[in-house]
Amino acid sequence: MLEQLKQAVYEANLELPRRGLVTYTWGNVSGIDRERGLVVIKPSGVAYEDLTPETLVVLDLEGRIVEGDLNPSSDTKTHLELYRAFPALGGVVHTHSPHAVGWAQAGRDIPCYGTTHADYFHGPVPCARHLTKEELDEDYEKNTGRVIVETFTQRGIDPVHLPAVICHSHGPFAWGKDPAQAVYHAAVLEEVAKMALYTRLVSPDAAPAPGYLVEKHFSRKHGPNAYYGQKN
Amino acid sequence: MLEQLKQAVYEANLELPRRGLVTYTWGNVSGIDRERGLVVIKPSGVAYEDLTPETLVVLDLEGRIVEGDLNPSSDTKTHLELYRAFPALGGVVHTHSPHAVGWAQAGRDIPCYGTTHADYFHGPVPCARHLTKEELDEDYEKNTGRVIVETFTQRGIDPVHLPAVICHSHGPFAWGKDPAQAVYHAAVLEEVAKMALYTRLVSPDAAPAPGYLVEKHFSRKHGPNAYYGQKN
Amino acid sequence: MLEQLKQAVYEANLELPRRGLVTYTWGNVSGIDRERGLVVIKPSGVAYEDLTPETLVVLDLEGRIVEGDLNPSSDTKTHLELYRAFPALGGVVHTHSPHAVGWAQAGRDIPCYGTTHADYFHGPVPCARHLTKEELDEDYEKNTGRVIVETFTQRGIDPVHLPAVICHSHGPFAWGKDPAQAVYHAAVLEEVAKMALYTRLVSPDAAPAPGYLVEKHFSRKHGPNAYYGQKN
Amino acid sequence: MLEQLKQAVYEANLELPRRGLVTYTWGNVSGIDRERGLVVIKPSGVAYEDLTPETLVVLDLEGRIVEGDLNPSSDTKTHLELYRAFPALGGVVHTHSPHAVGWAQAGRDIPCYGTTHADYFHGPVPCARHLTKEELDEDYEKNTGRVIVETFTQRGIDPVHLPAVICHSHGPFAWGKDPAQAVYHAAVLEEVAKMALYTRLVSPDAAPAPGYLVEKHFSRKHGPNAYYGQKN
Repeated sequence: MLEQLKQAVYEANLELPRRGLVTYTWGNVSGIDRERGLVVIKPSGVAYEDLTPETLVVLDLEGRIVEGDLNPSSDTKTHLELYRAFPALGGVVHTHSPHAVGWAQAGRDIPCYGTTHADYFHGPVPCARHLTKEELDEDYEKNTGRVIVETFTQRGIDPVHLPAVICHSHGPFAWGKDPAQAVYHAAVLEEVAKMALYTRLVSPDAAPAPGYLVEKHFSRKHGPNAYYGQKN
Repeated sequence: MLEQLKQAVYEANLELPRRGLVTYTWGNVSGIDRERGLVVIKPSGVAYEDLTPETLVVLDLEGRIVEGDLNPSSDTKTHLELYRAFPALGGVVHTHSPHAVGWAQAGRDIPCYGTTHADYFHGPVPCARHLTKEELDEDYEKNTGRVIVETFTQRGIDPVHLPAVICHSHGPFAWGKDPAQAVYHAAVLEEVAKMALYTRLVSPDAAPAPGYLVEKHFSRKHGPNAYYGQKN
Repeated sequence: MLEQLKQAVYEANLELPRRGLVTYTWGNVSGIDRERGLVVIKPSGVAYEDLTPETLVVLDLEGRIVEGDLNPSSDTKTHLELYRAFPALGGVVHTHSPHAVGWAQAGRDIPCYGTTHADYFHGPVPCARHLTKEELDEDYEKNTGRVIVETFTQRGIDPVHLPAVICHSHGPFAWGKDPAQAVYHAAVLEEVAKMALYTRLVSPDAAPAPGYLVEKHFSRKHGPNAYYGQKN
Repeated sequence: MLEQLKQAVYEANLELPRRGLVTYTWGNVSGIDRERGLVVIKPSGVAYEDLTPETLVVLDLEGRIVEGDLNPSSDTKTHLELYRAFPALGGVVHTHSPHAVGWAQAGRDIPCYGTTHADYFHGPVPCARHLTKEELDEDYEKNTGRVIVETFTQRGIDPVHLPAVICHSHGPFAWGKDPAQAVYHAAVLEEVAKMALYTRLVSPDAAPAPGYLVEKHFSRKHGPNAYYGQKN
């Protein structure tokens, strides 16, 4: 069942250590089959070198395990919440990549300081608020997802145009049209977080990039007038 | 004698350069056989590529050499002091990993800024005070261990729930149930020290993570209600 | 056509990931045949591992495609503008290398703090101003080149003696007598940007190197009295 | 002639890129045969991968070439000055390793913040002053050596107990009893410079390590009562 999706989720998980995005087992990727409403996700605490497509866990959007002998990632409910709220998502990834975590632990949005950022993220990468104690006690992982969704809704951000978030005192989630693109965005986020830190260190009062430059770069790669890359 | 423990200590020592935790010979791992009261430790100043299980040194808890032709690590008495004071320890490691040393040289506890930290360390990683000149002259390495133990006792910290310390102007020690877990904790400590530095650079007045978030993450991985990873 | 130049441009592009100067496809190198007035450049958005000399695009200095089935780099017009304004250039490269981007996003010239910098760049590496919205709307990539040229002209900088620039909120361009030297200068720029950041972190009010030291080092490697390296 | 020394100098030069201490050709190692008064040094501007023991240059202490077809390192006169002033030196190395350069460009001594530093360097690593314009014009490389020697003489530092220096706006020189130990000290210097930067970033007003701790660590590894490592 879902052999193609399992292969894609498997390969996207292996890309995490190759891109230097994870230490030990600190990251997980999932993918969704929208027609069947089924999600494939990494099992919890399993080393990337022990992973095979067969060890992945299949769940429905309510979190019921449909296939797999292992426990799914402890962050599974966050993934599911994102898939339910954002219908355009085909893959979700969570990491503890260190520069993105630095911003998350500082509780600050990552400012859009330049074109590297604007090529992928249409505005500052938002830092989602802390859960309240009540939200955490009720259902930590599910409410982590809800607070991310709340952040995008309240600020009026389109998750397709800004495919990442950092959670206060925690770390980043990123997503994309499929698992590979989700990991691609997680890698871009880490690089952008690093550049933003360097920018602040050179000049603590550096200003964000002008809005018209951000629009230009985002629209070079996205939308009907995009002209980056090849058409086919 | 102690072939299995020697193999474990040998492999844990080799993991230090693989994880980027040591330059030259700047680190050592030991393990203990609690039933026999014997400790196996790296010989002093030997390059990791020249190490074999046979070159390891075996001592009793009083520091008497039981087996081995080479001098044991110059930090041996610190290891022994930790094994004597903390009965749950099965392995101990000392490194000079650079971000942990940065905090140690600054003489500051590593604040618990987020979930990466809270997953492993139940509160700030304490910075143990300087030895007095008298303590240093009496027995430097032994009293280094005693000051670590004093730090945990005075602050009421359980070393099983906070398996690492940084010594002022020196560097980190970490431990675990066995030599491999000790090195695992040393690697986590370095990563957490790096993230804490980045956090401070983004925002010098960043606040520690809320207590209830720390509790939640620690208890996801530890204790009777842990639900991270696989049960078996 | 232009087999030798294509090979040189191909190899210079592959050097970008080898030197750690690019993430994904974030960089492009071109080279020029001055006699024929033809430029060879990387196609847009193509991964370095998929590149072959045959996939490169050949254009004239007006931007008309002379050979190649793929779209040229989206930065092509900037390259062409530099070739037209600076006749000594044989190769041009654009990257998003992180330390150079840090300075570019901060909108600051990279100060000439020492001899590593002075060996290659005869003075601070200038940060070119933002384009106005009008310049951007008219022709973003072409005017990016014009603003670089304006920077060198207004400040009276010889592009042969200072073979790099950073563009505000964007990133670096570097050049040389051929594509290989352009990449060499891009790698030096990233290293120099890193050292300059470290310098500022050690001492935020560090002074630039004395002018006579800068002259000495530059002239050890450049001009009629150069005595670095071998004569042949 | 001097086959053994040439082999040692050759291998020590190759160790520079392996240890990540050099970019391109930015470093050079020499060694001396004290009985014959002959120095073997890397040729100028030659890539490490093109180096062979035969390409090395042999000079006497007055700088007269005794053997070799290539120009010696442009820093040769600095090496010779150090060999003449400090009779205990058997090897000298110059690099532009980035953290040591950061301190050099800031014009600050590297403070002795902890035991990693004290294990090798008996006190702060001094930053030698700028040459005056007159000194530079007279003989830049020779006077660079003289200013290093002046620094050690005026401050009463024993170069055997503090085998490294950083030159203002330039970078580090290190030395040892032979070429391999010189490179070892250059690698330690870079690591110590990195840790000192991290220390300052954690706490800009961090204090140096207590004097008695510095003495203890230095004497664990040096002098008649050393007990680090193996005796043989």
